Amino acid sequence: MNFYMNTVDLIRKKRNGESLSEDEMRFLIHGYVHGSIPEYQMSAFLMAVYFRGMSDEETLTFTRLMLDSGKRIDLTDIPGRKVDKHSTGGVGDKVSLILAPLVASCKVPVPMISGRGLGHTGGTLDKLESIPGFRTTLTLEEYRNIIQRIGVVMMGQTSEIAPADKKMYALRDVTATVECIPLIAGSIMSKKLAEGIDALVLDIKTGRGAFMETYEKAIDLGTTLVKIGNGFGVRTIGFVTDMNEPLGIAVGNWLEVVESVHCLQGKRGRSDHSADLMEVTYTLSGAMVYLGGKANSIEEGIQVCRESIDSGRAYSKFLELVEAQGGDVESIENLSSYPLSTNIVEVKSPKGGFIQEIDSFELGQVSILLGAGRTKLDDPIDMKAGIVLRKKVGDSVMQGEPLAVLYTDKDSVVTEARHRVAQAYTITAVPSSRTSRIISMIDMEGVHPFN
Amino acid sequence: MNFYMNTVDLIRKKRNGESLSEDEMRFLIHGYVHGSIPEYQMSAFLMAVYFRGMSDEETLTFTRLMLDSGKRIDLTDIPGRKVDKHSTGGVGDKVSLILAPLVASCKVPVPMISGRGLGHTGGTLDKLESIPGFRTTLTLEEYRNIIQRIGVVMMGQTSEIAPADKKMYALRDVTATVECIPLIAGSIMSKKLAEGIDALVLDIKTGRGAFMETYEKAIDLGTTLVKIGNGFGVRTIGFVTDMNEPLGIAVGNWLEVVESVHCLQGKRGRSDHSADLMEVTYTLSGAMVYLGGKANSIEEGIQVCRESIDSGRAYSKFLELVEAQGGDVESIENLSSYPLSTNIVEVKSPKGGFIQEIDSFELGQVSILLGAGRTKLDDPIDMKAGIVLRKKVGDSVMQGEPLAVLYTDKDSVVTEARHRVAQAYTITAVPSSRTSRIISMIDMEGVHPFN
Repeated sequence: MNFYMNTVDLIRKKRNGESLSEDEMRFLIHGYVHGSIPEYQMSAFLMAVYFRGMSDEETLTFTRLMLDSGKRIDLTDIPGRKVDKHSTGGVGDKVSLILAPLVASCKVPVPMISGRGLGHTGGTLDKLESIPGFRTTLTLEEYRNIIQRIGVVMMGQTSEIAPADKKMYALRDVTATVECIPLIAGSIMSKKLAEGIDALVLDIKTGRGAFMETYEKAIDLGTTLVKIGNGFGVRTIGFVTDMNEPLGIAVGNWLEVVESVHCLQGKRGRSDHSADLMEVTYTLSGAMVYLGGKANSIEEGIQVCRESIDSGRAYSKFLELVEAQGGDVESIENLSSYPLSTNIVEVKSPKGGFIQEIDSFELGQVSILLGAGRTKLDDPIDMKAGIVLRKKVGDSVMQGEPLAVLYTDKDSVVTEARHRVAQAYTITAVPSSRTSRIISMIDMEGVHPFN
Repeated sequence: MNFYMNTVDLIRKKRNGESLSEDEMRFLIHGYVHGSIPEYQMSAFLMAVYFRGMSDEETLTFTRLMLDSGKRIDLTDIPGRKVDKHSTGGVGDKVSLILAPLVASCKVPVPMISGRGLGHTGGTLDKLESIPGFRTTLTLEEYRNIIQRIGVVMMGQTSEIAPADKKMYALRDVTATVECIPLIAGSIMSKKLAEGIDALVLDIKTGRGAFMETYEKAIDLGTTLVKIGNGFGVRTIGFVTDMNEPLGIAVGNWLEVVESVHCLQGKRGRSDHSADLMEVTYTLSGAMVYLGGKANSIEEGIQVCRESIDSGRAYSKFLELVEAQGGDVESIENLSSYPLSTNIVEVKSPKGGFIQEIDSFELGQVSILLGAGRTKLDDPIDMKAGIVLRKKVGDSVMQGEPLAVLYTDKDSVVTEARHRVAQAYTITAVPSSRTSRIISMIDMEGVHPFN
């Protein structure tokens, strides 16, 4: 380490497009976490990174420093290769709820630490907590015990995991430095690597309503994430998936639990409208089973997962999970016992035609309006609220036929919400067709078409 | 004004390369000055400006907001067109000490507010304060009285002038956002425009040891400054001048006063080595006399100034100034009464040849080592310390002949300083020649060669 390091010189170095050494990066991150480097210097540095980027080596170092700012959970004494999944978040994305017990039911342990929803995409924790009694705030001891006993656990972020990331993310959020691939990648991976996993599968969403709106950016982020994971000895595979309509039929916490339960029971809800959800779920969980050493290829992994759903083992594992984390199993076994929203309102199609696209971002925003999400971290959530789609891309519709159903306790928003949901549908005279949600797969060899 | 403005949105807007409206800029600057926008947001904004720049309109608005954050001195009741000069700072640059009384002696009032030295370039205030008793901290009332009575005043920055700039500059200094032309221009001009002037002449230094190292950047800054000045109705002319050797012979506070007094007395020190200093001084002061309405062209203004030096009027005005601001006139009239440094050491030439270049930046650094300058704003200064050059560019030198003389009370630095000063001289076998220090002139019509 240099005898003397000066924060301004390091900001200037990055500003001028040079790479920082490991010692220099450590000086910055440690200084920031321990309070010797003030927020105004860190925010200037972050904005310089926004413009200048980071080399692969810097990104790895950055991730390691964030990871090392907190605890790294050691699960080596638990048999099997532990595998997790991370998604950049999408509207109606309840994949984790199905996938975690599903993969665990295939004998691959899934230790999952998730986040809360903010903005138009919901959070896995919120969805789980819509199950009466379900606790996502666990001690590290409970986390270890549950994964050891039933092979799956789903917990919220704790202050012991990557505290540097927590502090840095809060700063990025208020300084317009969120949308920067190395910073995003470091933030995601420092938290995932702390879980004690051996392998990781990533779902990078692209399209309107996704964090990475363009395919190019999704590939860029995915490639960076895959490099970091493998750089830390965690086998990592990424999938770029399409977000040009919500995933499945439900948007809203309890409504998504219901859809997930139907999928776990092999019922697929009222129609095959959850097919896209299950395509993504099977692909990701198949890859996890493969990385977990319980299949010889992703395709074989997918087959193993299908059998687990069909046999009922996946659903049983889900009930085990609910019970292990204090949830009310009866509310799952008898879904209709859950309270209903005071307003349950159909959105009728203004015209006949074919559904070409559904604006996920707008549906995410409307779900917040209905009470299902937050705009600030301490906003309350109405667990029952949300939207259920009756029509998805590829469907035909007649004028006046229902496109979707709204669930809300807020009378005053119904008119606006109904109008906006109708507008979110692009309906044309030309027949449309359903396409695969999986666009490509990324591993250390590069980007591959997948399907 | 928009009903609701969000700081993060404005940072993002600038980050994405868009221009901010006047209302948006006001929201940011006011918010920052009044504490509702924290430093970490302002520093991220400043770094975004570093990368994205500002439009001419934004730069004008930015300057106006900084200016309006404080008092704007009204000198309209004082007869004549008030003219000032600003220099971006150079090693050995004592032009202000000669020019201010000189221009005032030509009946053009000069209300000058200057800064302190920091780093390798000295500050006018420090040089003036090396005169025993000279006070640069004046009230605005004293400032007005002195300019009214004798036509010239030289004061330090007060907290009433552009406080936004003071706060912002301190932040830029620690976040590597100093080197950014619109920010530099706004900072300089907000302070100058507050002085109550009608016209302004700028000296933009270029070369090693100058703030703008390249000619292109100097032109860029000069053009921006000229546009701002004229945009505020203050006729502004800029000169780009060369800093590839120190200006004149002296580097160090009292040593520079001595050289200035010799120049004001028409003596030019021990040799004509102050010729370059007087070339720059006459050009800038000639332009001021022209802008002040006491000559019909810059050339005629230069002639008026030469006559004022030759007649002794300029020197008399300097003595008036020293007396008006509490300085000891006797110390000027009898320069040898001033205390001497304990070490006065010749630097001998290591070889014979011709002086091609003298590294101003390095001489500035050595003068700090000798005690003449500061690296932090509260460092003490040894007023007597510094360097006097015996050889300048264009001179021939024999091996062992003195290149320069060092003045210092610090015994321990003599060996290093002697070595570094010798190394700062580039001596070759090829004869060199003196060239003009004035490279070009900038006005609203553009850049013109000047000589």
